[in-house]
Amino acid sequence: MSIRNLIDLNQLSSEELDDIVDMAGRISRHPTHYCSACRDKLMATLFYEPSTRTQMSFQSAMLRLGGKIIGFDNPNSTSVAKGESLKDTVTVLGGYTDILTIRHPIEGAAMAASLYSDVPVINAGDGGHLHPTQTLTDIVTLRNVVGRTDNLVIGMCGDLANGRTVHSLCRSMSRYSGNSFVFISTQKLSMPQYIKDYVKSMGCEYSEVRTLEEAIPYLDVLYMTRIQRERFDSVEEYEAQKGIYVLDGKKMSLGRPELCVLHPLPRVDEISYEVDDDPRAYYFQQTLYGMYARMALIIRMTSQHETCAPVKREETPKFTCHNPKCITRFERYLPHLTVDTPKGKVCAYCEHDEN
Amino acid sequence: MSIRNLIDLNQLSSEELDDIVDMAGRISRHPTHYCSACRDKLMATLFYEPSTRTQMSFQSAMLRLGGKIIGFDNPNSTSVAKGESLKDTVTVLGGYTDILTIRHPIEGAAMAASLYSDVPVINAGDGGHLHPTQTLTDIVTLRNVVGRTDNLVIGMCGDLANGRTVHSLCRSMSRYSGNSFVFISTQKLSMPQYIKDYVKSMGCEYSEVRTLEEAIPYLDVLYMTRIQRERFDSVEEYEAQKGIYVLDGKKMSLGRPELCVLHPLPRVDEISYEVDDDPRAYYFQQTLYGMYARMALIIRMTSQHETCAPVKREETPKFTCHNPKCITRFERYLPHLTVDTPKGKVCAYCEHDEN
Amino acid sequence: MSIRNLIDLNQLSSEELDDIVDMAGRISRHPTHYCSACRDKLMATLFYEPSTRTQMSFQSAMLRLGGKIIGFDNPNSTSVAKGESLKDTVTVLGGYTDILTIRHPIEGAAMAASLYSDVPVINAGDGGHLHPTQTLTDIVTLRNVVGRTDNLVIGMCGDLANGRTVHSLCRSMSRYSGNSFVFISTQKLSMPQYIKDYVKSMGCEYSEVRTLEEAIPYLDVLYMTRIQRERFDSVEEYEAQKGIYVLDGKKMSLGRPELCVLHPLPRVDEISYEVDDDPRAYYFQQTLYGMYARMALIIRMTSQHETCAPVKREETPKFTCHNPKCITRFERYLPHLTVDTPKGKVCAYCEHDEN
Repeated sequence: MSIRNLIDLNQLSSEELDDIVDMAGRISRHPTHYCSACRDKLMATLFYEPSTRTQMSFQSAMLRLGGKIIGFDNPNSTSVAKGESLKDTVTVLGGYTDILTIRHPIEGAAMAASLYSDVPVINAGDGGHLHPTQTLTDIVTLRNVVGRTDNLVIGMCGDLANGRTVHSLCRSMSRYSGNSFVFISTQKLSMPQYIKDYVKSMGCEYSEVRTLEEAIPYLDVLYMTRIQRERFDSVEEYEAQKGIYVLDGKKMSLGRPELCVLHPLPRVDEISYEVDDDPRAYYFQQTLYGMYARMALIIRMTSQHETCAPVKREETPKFTCHNPKCITRFERYLPHLTVDTPKGKVCAYCEHDEN
Repeated sequence: MSIRNLIDLNQLSSEELDDIVDMAGRISRHPTHYCSACRDKLMATLFYEPSTRTQMSFQSAMLRLGGKIIGFDNPNSTSVAKGESLKDTVTVLGGYTDILTIRHPIEGAAMAASLYSDVPVINAGDGGHLHPTQTLTDIVTLRNVVGRTDNLVIGMCGDLANGRTVHSLCRSMSRYSGNSFVFISTQKLSMPQYIKDYVKSMGCEYSEVRTLEEAIPYLDVLYMTRIQRERFDSVEEYEAQKGIYVLDGKKMSLGRPELCVLHPLPRVDEISYEVDDDPRAYYFQQTLYGMYARMALIIRMTSQHETCAPVKREETPKFTCHNPKCITRFERYLPHLTVDTPKGKVCAYCEHDEN
Repeated sequence: MSIRNLIDLNQLSSEELDDIVDMAGRISRHPTHYCSACRDKLMATLFYEPSTRTQMSFQSAMLRLGGKIIGFDNPNSTSVAKGESLKDTVTVLGGYTDILTIRHPIEGAAMAASLYSDVPVINAGDGGHLHPTQTLTDIVTLRNVVGRTDNLVIGMCGDLANGRTVHSLCRSMSRYSGNSFVFISTQKLSMPQYIKDYVKSMGCEYSEVRTLEEAIPYLDVLYMTRIQRERFDSVEEYEAQKGIYVLDGKKMSLGRPELCVLHPLPRVDEISYEVDDDPRAYYFQQTLYGMYARMALIIRMTSQHETCAPVKREETPKFTCHNPKCITRFERYLPHLTVDTPKGKVCAYCEHDEN
């Protein structure tokens, strides 16, 4: 089983996803068995915006497999600063290496890169759009820590309106049977309707509450995220409400003994340091499972023996994406590509649907 | 056959150059045969100005040979920022490693570095002076793509006045018999007289034209380069002329089926994207041959079993170089060294001749 | 013999120190024997302030042992910039890797890091506090160049008031019998009283002089350091005195044939370039011994087969460190830890004693 690109976790079949999750578990138990799995393979990490944590997770994963790494994390010191297109950078680095990992502030950039790369491409975050290896990390952690990914009551707390991490996790966990969700946020930062509709359409239940206290006693999993100060309507509202969404020892005392607390990190102050010593705090182990998940993914994506040119897709000539953050607005040579969804044709790069 | 330093491609004998070009071809056909050729060797890339593309080409080359890399690409975060001399940095890093690759904004810096390094030094670009591995890349590409480096009609288009890349390629291609050149540029950006004289002195013909259209039907090779907007006399002139030097599908249709289009990259807009799909566009393959060329070079330069102190050269005590961009102006401890040329003694670092 | 952390060189027993120094000597004689000693081990270099020279010495050391490296050197492009705590960064990176090397501008940061790391921690400099691998480098150099570390007359020249390097070397060399010190500096930049008291308490003699000339004829070792211009009371004083502390050929002519000149580098102008060719100048070899010293240290610190959680230490609840540069002022979750000294309880992080 080999995977050409990982742009969107939902593009993996259930079999492919299960295969990677299982392999990540095996790696976590016997990491040294895999220390030559990618010997003589070279990965480039193309980070068009700095994200040292994510970059070091990919780098550690590749080095732990016996592979090698090159890359950049500062577009100001690259050919990009001289005006080079994404196409040219990807084409050249795809020639030097065996796999590309790309992080980019613009939506759809990873998909665009995959059109020009002779080697597999991993999306390590494309603006506010997708971050599939974070969700893969979350699933691997649940499988190994909780022991299952179905029949769970999953709380999500923080900025649910803007967090691509929680949106993506909702979609992926809806694929497993018997999961239900509790969304914990202010009114303003509540989960978008299209995610709630999706959850429903997959046969999962959800509820919405305003405080951590009322939700925590019922949860199997609590997924914490950061609320940025500037997301509140006023300083007064921030001061009044911030404590409600901070997880501390007192709130933990309301949780079940089997509770599993996760966080994509970095945290700022939404989890008190006293919680770190609670055996139900799994956010540091989560980063380790993130490295194992990436190891499994890299093995599956570099197992092809030959490089292969990317598949040419048919253009939708008159289509123009209206999302101002879409990569097609910045890289004008890109072909006009669409995908069909229940809502009609949407941009194949950023999946923006108000066209 | 082993090479101590690569400061100037013209310092290689024809046998040495052919040997490297041939080896690069063998590596391109069987890259995995060389994956341990530099095992346990360490290269430092000292980039005193950022050039991510060139640095990643060297890094990929070394890693593909099983070697290891350290280095910097931002002098602001180095000892250099604390006022350390080139001599001290090179001496220390030559102690840590097996080979140094140096990129520097000042002319003659690589030559200066070679005076203090116990290990081989590669010039990866010293200001506007030399960039020998780019020219080596071009030669390796022609040998492998066109099949020969002699009896070619070579067009060069763009900023021929200021481009060290085209100057260097002219000199190197003049060493092979039967080559002729067509220089395509504005009057202001035309090839300098001393290069034209050199070409002539080597028994090669050249002509000069003002448009791509008139030249392209006769070319075996078209070497495109960038014209910077600020090189034109006025905005009006830029607007009027820019299209003349942009290679597009229409101009390509005038070229011969055997035409080989090259470009040192990064491009901005001097080659239209539509040309990328033309089978005569070889600029992306050219970057791959650049990696193979550097692999061959590194193998030849690290094959010595012992480090050896640099050879001391005799000083020309009263000589002072008058080039304000020469490294001797910035690093005052450097010995006064000259080389004899047909024009008389010139600075051994920057080869500037108006002294 | 394995070492958990290296925060302060004085925490090593004499046996541990001798073992590392001996091993560094063996590595310097047969470096290739150790080229697989850390195969499949991964080191992270966490440089919260740039220090390219030190970072490249550690990186070269790890790569020369067959190990691998990740890391950062620019906190602005890391999770740190998003407000992440030292604890979280260290916990996560300790999960990815086998050993951490940390450089930080705040005193006590390396000790703080060691509280949260499941893998060994090396202090690569914590503000003005300690820099143990520099002192280890100095000791390894003396053992290999001079042949002994006892019964030496050691001159130290430059800014002795503010130099953590000379303070640390004084303390370490006082542990060996028969050493005596000559402190060469201006009145204002003279060695602090507590260092002089310490030297005395260890049974070593010292004297203080104002010029290099009067000291140099009697020295076995001359340890040069930089005096920053801004350390002088006025520009006039700087101009008048700077030459007194510059080592040049004339002053070298007053030294004994066995003199060994050291400098932690980078130098600016406190040693003239003409001295570089004097066989008694050992400061470049010193950087090489620094790499060998770090290789020996890394071998000893990664030889444990299992990761082990850091030892929990008992808090001193009401203790607050009054040093404004102490890490406890910046990372508020840190436990209040003290150590007992002859002067009473002092902060366990920065060892500041005016509490």
